[in-house]
Amino acid sequence: MKLISLPLFCAVFAAAQTAPQAVERWSVFEITLRGPESGNPFIDVQLSAVFQHEHRAVTVTGFYDGAGVYRIRFMPDADGAWTYSTSSNTPGLNAKTGAFNVTRPSPDNHGPVTVRHTYHFGYADGTPYYPFGTTAYAWAHQGDELESQTLATLRAAPFNKMRMCVFPKDYVYNQNEPKFYPFPRDASGVNDYTRFNPEFFRHFEGLVRKLMDQGIEADLILFHPYDRWGYAKMPADVDDRYLRYTIARLAAFRNVWWSMANEWDFMKEKKLSDWDRFFRLTQESDPYQHLRSIHNGAILYDHSKPWVTHASIQHDDFNRTVEWLTTYRKPVVFDECKYEGNIPRRWGDISAQEMVRRFWLGFAQGAYVGHGETYIHPQDILWWSKGGVLHGQSPQRIAFLRKIVEQWPERGVVPFPNHQFPAAYREGEFYLYYLDYHQPAEFEFELPPGMKFKADVIDPWEMTITPAPGTYEGKFTLKLPGKPYQAVRFVRAR
Amino acid sequence: MKLISLPLFCAVFAAAQTAPQAVERWSVFEITLRGPESGNPFIDVQLSAVFQHEHRAVTVTGFYDGAGVYRIRFMPDADGAWTYSTSSNTPGLNAKTGAFNVTRPSPDNHGPVTVRHTYHFGYADGTPYYPFGTTAYAWAHQGDELESQTLATLRAAPFNKMRMCVFPKDYVYNQNEPKFYPFPRDASGVNDYTRFNPEFFRHFEGLVRKLMDQGIEADLILFHPYDRWGYAKMPADVDDRYLRYTIARLAAFRNVWWSMANEWDFMKEKKLSDWDRFFRLTQESDPYQHLRSIHNGAILYDHSKPWVTHASIQHDDFNRTVEWLTTYRKPVVFDECKYEGNIPRRWGDISAQEMVRRFWLGFAQGAYVGHGETYIHPQDILWWSKGGVLHGQSPQRIAFLRKIVEQWPERGVVPFPNHQFPAAYREGEFYLYYLDYHQPAEFEFELPPGMKFKADVIDPWEMTITPAPGTYEGKFTLKLPGKPYQAVRFVRAR
Repeated sequence: MKLISLPLFCAVFAAAQTAPQAVERWSVFEITLRGPESGNPFIDVQLSAVFQHEHRAVTVTGFYDGAGVYRIRFMPDADGAWTYSTSSNTPGLNAKTGAFNVTRPSPDNHGPVTVRHTYHFGYADGTPYYPFGTTAYAWAHQGDELESQTLATLRAAPFNKMRMCVFPKDYVYNQNEPKFYPFPRDASGVNDYTRFNPEFFRHFEGLVRKLMDQGIEADLILFHPYDRWGYAKMPADVDDRYLRYTIARLAAFRNVWWSMANEWDFMKEKKLSDWDRFFRLTQESDPYQHLRSIHNGAILYDHSKPWVTHASIQHDDFNRTVEWLTTYRKPVVFDECKYEGNIPRRWGDISAQEMVRRFWLGFAQGAYVGHGETYIHPQDILWWSKGGVLHGQSPQRIAFLRKIVEQWPERGVVPFPNHQFPAAYREGEFYLYYLDYHQPAEFEFELPPGMKFKADVIDPWEMTITPAPGTYEGKFTLKLPGKPYQAVRFVRAR
Repeated sequence: MKLISLPLFCAVFAAAQTAPQAVERWSVFEITLRGPESGNPFIDVQLSAVFQHEHRAVTVTGFYDGAGVYRIRFMPDADGAWTYSTSSNTPGLNAKTGAFNVTRPSPDNHGPVTVRHTYHFGYADGTPYYPFGTTAYAWAHQGDELESQTLATLRAAPFNKMRMCVFPKDYVYNQNEPKFYPFPRDASGVNDYTRFNPEFFRHFEGLVRKLMDQGIEADLILFHPYDRWGYAKMPADVDDRYLRYTIARLAAFRNVWWSMANEWDFMKEKKLSDWDRFFRLTQESDPYQHLRSIHNGAILYDHSKPWVTHASIQHDDFNRTVEWLTTYRKPVVFDECKYEGNIPRRWGDISAQEMVRRFWLGFAQGAYVGHGETYIHPQDILWWSKGGVLHGQSPQRIAFLRKIVEQWPERGVVPFPNHQFPAAYREGEFYLYYLDYHQPAEFEFELPPGMKFKADVIDPWEMTITPAPGTYEGKFTLKLPGKPYQAVRFVRAR
């Protein structure tokens, strides 16, 4: 065991050497320390640091990164002078101190996303965040070439959130071995659950950081049922250690969201109490309280439980949107509403038209909807799992919708009561109707009296916005195109 | 009071003069008698006849047709010699007897429709009956010219059932006065509920007979809420007398179905027990036990009640089809699933594509679906209410579906369990999948082993049937067009 044992002033100096002197707000400040390699540092060594800014102190857990290297990552949320001091049961890692300066965030850094206005999201700097997510469950386990291609695709795509699994995936179209495994394995594939494989995590968090740099939230799926390596049926103490380690490594990335599971109810080795425990443990371990959700297969988790920040739902009955918003009093995100594609699975073969329709059904009722794509590919590179490139026709229409949504009232919209069609509004400001399969040649709308509104007819598929002449108030009849899948928007004329 | 009082042999002779000597099976044999005009014959005079064939006797109620004319109508269901004898509290109408012969039905006369094979319908002669209904609620109250046009339209249309109200209708696009009223009215519009207006009924039953001659079932709606004349809030004794009179006049028409109501739950003057009573009274009064149903607004009647022959449903959630079939163990007819059209009402503005989709969703799960059409018209002549001509694009596709359905196994199809898509089958004979918004490029089907099937891909909108080469058995993958709203049919190869 190589114990680094120096007088205090030297330790400060050593720490300062490995940490930057200044970082911008909501970026990662990292302390690197050298410590013991012998024994089992993942279990034997406890390490944390208290970060202090004026009178406020934040305690952050560190982690062992292999080869005698220990790290503590911190995401500062206030500008100015910070200091830190480490604590450890290992003397050489204990009582390391340092100071650094936090500067204003750069223009594309809006901080982490949280819930606001009950049903909506915003960045820490006040900018609204409207989730336009996509899913590529196993894209982080495909090797550098394909992973780079996925990141390039995302740069041109309308998506600002990626649902992705921490663990590799074993499922149809997903049979490749990952390059890295989260735990050391022996020749016969037996996992050593008492240790982690830092290489795996370094690679994984590198991709999370690249998403962050591209302005994309990483909706990290902590457990999932599609597994042949053992990760879906680990003992409880391993589950908990895995969660704590993952959170210690990743929580300092501002774009991280925690999703306890993909299809939690399909994980037959876990009980409901396990999921509750994972939520609580995540809540206790995360100094930044990143968003927390859990995604269902056939059975909805009770999203009204206090540790759930928003409902992450797999469903395609958008008639239930208002019920869920009302029940949970939280944002509702249809993270999976089936995938645009043509594979021989009923969840992976909906048309682009249907996908676009579902986005509008959700957004026009004050909820959010996520994308995924499953077109047959000669090398089984389906976006929904491996990433790569997009082949479908819905992303450009989702981009069109995103532009429209980004002009919505900053406080977001809520379901419009007593409506005839899916509709959302912000009272006195904004009203949106999605007519779905209805094709009225005209329709009588009712807006608040004494306020003038401008009207637009929106064709979500053709991506056109056609202003109606004049202004409107109170009860009036508006001529409509008499074709299905149109939307009508009223914005207060100022 | 002109009492016709003759010796018995003369009475027989007189009766024989007014009744035909021979009628074909399932047609209307009518006895005409002269009787009192004074007093209130509608209430004072009781009249019935016993019709006898070999050892079987059927008692049938007669009715007063105004101007001293009394009629008894009978639909014989067996060929050969029949006799009858009347009973009345009025001596001149009592004990009239006669004889007639019943001959084989002509080729287009298949008899009345009843339920068979639990979920399906058939004519009395054994021919399957697949309901392809339409709705024109008030077409029988529009005057000769429009009524003739409606009948002409039906001759070229794919519909074999018409939902129609006995009472005139007052609703949007339906403000015209009817030519006839069912009860005498004074100058200020007050109804004399102690009498009927025979002219109204003669006109109405003339149209029912014309539908019969065109091979169209008349799904007669006995009560409905859309009323300004008082018919929706008559006293209970008037309701009952109206039902008995209507049944006495119309039950002998083989194409009659009894629908207790359109949107029963919207009739605020009626209690649930009233509807139960109407059902029982109809069941007791109808010698032929024509089909009986009740159509809902927002609240489903309990169609498992024993007097309901089939579930007549207004709904557009076809996901509930299997639930209703399983619950009721009766045929399920989506008599109203919204209307193809463009009026500014959410129930009357769905696209032709959506209407065709709904027909397939229902039929491909072993249920039946009805049509209606609501396109804006300069004179407010909307098919759904007044009849006239059809403007939409769904009827020709419904005709295409009807041809396909008429090739189904004679015993009908039932929902296919464990399916991935809406699907219906008759085991070992026939399998139909409707892929709805799914667009798989291929799909693995599983049919019973050891049987060979021919496969067709059906495009319900383009109206094409494309046979797949070869035959199929057991588990196999079939290439598909990769476009939405397709169907796949497997028929046992013999």
